[in-house]
Amino acid sequence: MPSFELGKDPALTDGLYSLLKRRGFFWPSYEIYGGIAGFYDLGPMGSLLRENIEKVWKDIFIVSEDYLLVDCPSITPEIAFRSSGHLEKFSDQLTRCIDCHTPFRADHLLEGYVDAPDLFSPQELETALRENGIKCPSCGSELGPLEEFNLMFRTSIGPGGEKTAYLRPETAQSIFMDFSLLYRMNRERMPFGVAQIGKGFRNEISPRQGILRLREFHMAEGEFFFDPEVPDFPPFERFKDSNVRLIPNNDPSSTKEMTLGDAVERGLICSEVLAYHMGLTRSFACEIGIPIEHMRFRQHLASEMAHYARDCWDLEVELSSGWIEMVGIADRSAYDLNQHSTGSGEEMTAKRLLSEPVQRSVTRIEADLKVLGPIFRGNAGKIARELICMDASGIRSIKDKGEPVIVELPDGSVHKVPTEAVIISEVEEKVSIEKYTPHVVEPSFGIDRLMAAVIEHAYTEMEKSPLKGSDEEEMGPYRVLRFDPRISPIKCGVFPLMNRDGLPEIAKTLLSDLKKIGLITYYDHSGSIGRRYARMDEIGTPFSITIDYESKEDHAATIRSRDTAEQIRVPIIDVPSKVLELMDRYKKE
Amino acid sequence: MPSFELGKDPALTDGLYSLLKRRGFFWPSYEIYGGIAGFYDLGPMGSLLRENIEKVWKDIFIVSEDYLLVDCPSITPEIAFRSSGHLEKFSDQLTRCIDCHTPFRADHLLEGYVDAPDLFSPQELETALRENGIKCPSCGSELGPLEEFNLMFRTSIGPGGEKTAYLRPETAQSIFMDFSLLYRMNRERMPFGVAQIGKGFRNEISPRQGILRLREFHMAEGEFFFDPEVPDFPPFERFKDSNVRLIPNNDPSSTKEMTLGDAVERGLICSEVLAYHMGLTRSFACEIGIPIEHMRFRQHLASEMAHYARDCWDLEVELSSGWIEMVGIADRSAYDLNQHSTGSGEEMTAKRLLSEPVQRSVTRIEADLKVLGPIFRGNAGKIARELICMDASGIRSIKDKGEPVIVELPDGSVHKVPTEAVIISEVEEKVSIEKYTPHVVEPSFGIDRLMAAVIEHAYTEMEKSPLKGSDEEEMGPYRVLRFDPRISPIKCGVFPLMNRDGLPEIAKTLLSDLKKIGLITYYDHSGSIGRRYARMDEIGTPFSITIDYESKEDHAATIRSRDTAEQIRVPIIDVPSKVLELMDRYKKE
Repeated sequence: MPSFELGKDPALTDGLYSLLKRRGFFWPSYEIYGGIAGFYDLGPMGSLLRENIEKVWKDIFIVSEDYLLVDCPSITPEIAFRSSGHLEKFSDQLTRCIDCHTPFRADHLLEGYVDAPDLFSPQELETALRENGIKCPSCGSELGPLEEFNLMFRTSIGPGGEKTAYLRPETAQSIFMDFSLLYRMNRERMPFGVAQIGKGFRNEISPRQGILRLREFHMAEGEFFFDPEVPDFPPFERFKDSNVRLIPNNDPSSTKEMTLGDAVERGLICSEVLAYHMGLTRSFACEIGIPIEHMRFRQHLASEMAHYARDCWDLEVELSSGWIEMVGIADRSAYDLNQHSTGSGEEMTAKRLLSEPVQRSVTRIEADLKVLGPIFRGNAGKIARELICMDASGIRSIKDKGEPVIVELPDGSVHKVPTEAVIISEVEEKVSIEKYTPHVVEPSFGIDRLMAAVIEHAYTEMEKSPLKGSDEEEMGPYRVLRFDPRISPIKCGVFPLMNRDGLPEIAKTLLSDLKKIGLITYYDHSGSIGRRYARMDEIGTPFSITIDYESKEDHAATIRSRDTAEQIRVPIIDVPSKVLELMDRYKKE
Repeated sequence: MPSFELGKDPALTDGLYSLLKRRGFFWPSYEIYGGIAGFYDLGPMGSLLRENIEKVWKDIFIVSEDYLLVDCPSITPEIAFRSSGHLEKFSDQLTRCIDCHTPFRADHLLEGYVDAPDLFSPQELETALRENGIKCPSCGSELGPLEEFNLMFRTSIGPGGEKTAYLRPETAQSIFMDFSLLYRMNRERMPFGVAQIGKGFRNEISPRQGILRLREFHMAEGEFFFDPEVPDFPPFERFKDSNVRLIPNNDPSSTKEMTLGDAVERGLICSEVLAYHMGLTRSFACEIGIPIEHMRFRQHLASEMAHYARDCWDLEVELSSGWIEMVGIADRSAYDLNQHSTGSGEEMTAKRLLSEPVQRSVTRIEADLKVLGPIFRGNAGKIARELICMDASGIRSIKDKGEPVIVELPDGSVHKVPTEAVIISEVEEKVSIEKYTPHVVEPSFGIDRLMAAVIEHAYTEMEKSPLKGSDEEEMGPYRVLRFDPRISPIKCGVFPLMNRDGLPEIAKTLLSDLKKIGLITYYDHSGSIGRRYARMDEIGTPFSITIDYESKEDHAATIRSRDTAEQIRVPIIDVPSKVLELMDRYKKE
């Protein structure tokens, strides 16, 4: 059996592992070929669970917070990662055995010998390996020198093999590259957020933690662009008084409880925008069912901060294997936009209104309508209007080369304007707008890990089946996944008591009515009702609906709730709306 | 401006292209670095449009048809594609200029010279290139010999670079590899379907059709497993009398109109299961708004059939660039399961009940409880029960080697049973169950193409703005995307007539109520109402809601419908439910 760690408590994870695979949550990929570490398949239950978690995320970020959703390719040309710094810096330290050539992550070899080797510099790793006399764990031979191993999967585009590309290690970069387009789409309004949900890829040297560390994983990222010179962020009012548990990096050994407002005031969290996104993250985690007492925010130490981060807080959730990072909320400052702007030569700025106009020397573009008129006729006025809004320094360099200026009109038509129609002058004037490079706060969610956390906190094991007289009793512990109904993969089970006497017909009509309102419903006509309930409890289905002989007389059905085992009798015709009401009520309780 | 072909009608696509990019549907990726053919970014509107199309797909396949949804990695080890045949056969013919070394797809070079060069064999391509005297289109030099170019993106897993892997060219293979697990999860019931929605990757030699041919694309695939010896498929009743337009491969020059039932009876479509999925595909395409008169099904010629296909029909949709394949519905027979079973050594079969039991020699396993008892105590009975259900031939070979038999109990615990506790005997008995390899029908949907088709068929251009007295009139043609409201990226616009006098407060309360029921809503307080309507029409928002001065008195708002421009006055409190009702009514009209 492949190793699987949801958490390290074997009593919890052994039984849970078997349930998760057997019932179709997830399992290691490519098992028929022996499996490959770091890849997992999400089965029928896992796929729906993931979708439901992402749905809650979208309800918060896209629907409520008005983040713009984008969806960009995973395959990314090398030049983008040269700009972003990933080509140079996104790597782990590796050492190979000089005899058997097995590769190892250097910091993994030091676990148990030193504290937090994952924060060591290459020099510190080298020293610690030597001082502790670490040998190859496979064959006992000496280890070779440290190598820098880039964690991006490499491929190439096109038949020549000439265009090197990488699979994105995060979804963020495409958002930065599209910044100017997105800013225009947002009608040049600041601040605004952009979100992306999709796969990330990291070629981990030796992934060992099951679904907690994957080589191909699901992530949801938001990039919130804002003006760094505006310190106040009015929406923060909402979370100002929220109590959180913090581990600031000036005292990493103790957990402090305080409000987000206090943490900003004391300078522990660098800005209201960052703190706001910590609040948002916490309320998302609550909504998917992670108990607040098992959450904390830990600030990255300076040494573990990513190359782009000015400040970073992780939402950690307590699992049986310890506190695990689920979400990183980083202030990336203007780093990425500056890097891509330099790398591509494209300006990536926003505009801000100055509180007081200032005197400045300004390059102004004018259009000579006497030249434009005869050439462009009806379009001349529109072209002139576009022209004077264009970037003056760009136009100047085009004009200097004597090349025509390309103007695109709002109707999509493209026009070449001869250089003599473009007049450039320097004037002193009062300016009330200036350009700046926005800063970015990025909440980055590891969806697979959150799924594992949701499962572990929903999992309950009972020694005996609560179902009296059923044949379940001999099956060992009774297992329930107490998901919030919004998160549950299957919303209802529909069961005719017997598979005859007209009961299946009644049940199937109800089934079809439930499906019509979009509820994923499981139909089951075989085995004892107790066994059918048990099956639903194991996959976390909140409502089981039974059609019995009485249903033929009273046109009603029994709805059993997973968590309370309470049963209510409801007219069949009202069952769909009753289920929606019960789902809604769960949220509020 | 990068070339973009939604279709070839420039009058349609020029204006449409500019709208789609400007309004955030999609645009070529990595534009700031010059772009790379075959990659597109979906912007804020495109991402939501895609999600909504996939939502309709899931409502049909997952909710109604009970397909099991899975979600597996894109990175796939080489061995899987060795089994599936992709390593050997998933390629195009390539030729390079002997001077400038530019690579070309051989069949592309022959377009305009011969008919349907994409169906030519390598020999035929070679001959046609020679006979037509084709030279390098870039420099005029001679072309080199044909090379086979595999279309899968290659990468490697782990630090050694030793484990070659590819990005999946289709999502199907992981479903086949997981067949036995999924069959057990479905409680060994046949037939059943499995679905996957995700990215596919094909390293096209020279992608030239914009979003119609991408190197990284969105797909939704279903794999429907069934018993090939059961000819009837009762659910087919639903589509038996559906009229469809068919181009069968025995007469590829003419379109025939007939019912799906007739087509099966005449042997044009190979099975009811395949025809059922053609019916399902057609009703999906209707639901997302593709007009039925612009759809047809074309059967693959024997020469264009994929290496795994026994029969295949494409749903083609008419765009301004001609008839374009959107969905392929293939009968893959038992090909894939057989290939992976051979490649991995794992049995991949289902069980069928024989109508009459037959006499057969059967290998039977018995457990010696006298041996098991002392070793396993309380578990001995459970282990014995598991043991006799295991695969007899596998157990025999383990026993022959003298190795212990590994038994996993339902609670996840694993036990080593010594060989002497396992008794194997050959007996003659009546058997009423036999194993078989299921066949597969696969409907495979190209989501990006469907999105392009939906957009083109929703697009309407008017010479003049229908909005009287607005400043829109000078803006050139007036454009509307008439999406079905379920598909529309944004469902409502909310507009305070003026940004003062308490109107924004009323509008924002309504905004928040609309968001609470999950409706993506756009708030806009600036510019004339006409301009705000026009913006909503361009992105296909079905309902625009205005709060005016009267709203302060009568607590009502005006809902304007995109398609009819009809305006109704509704109490503000009823607006959310009214919008839902109007969305629902649209579907039925």
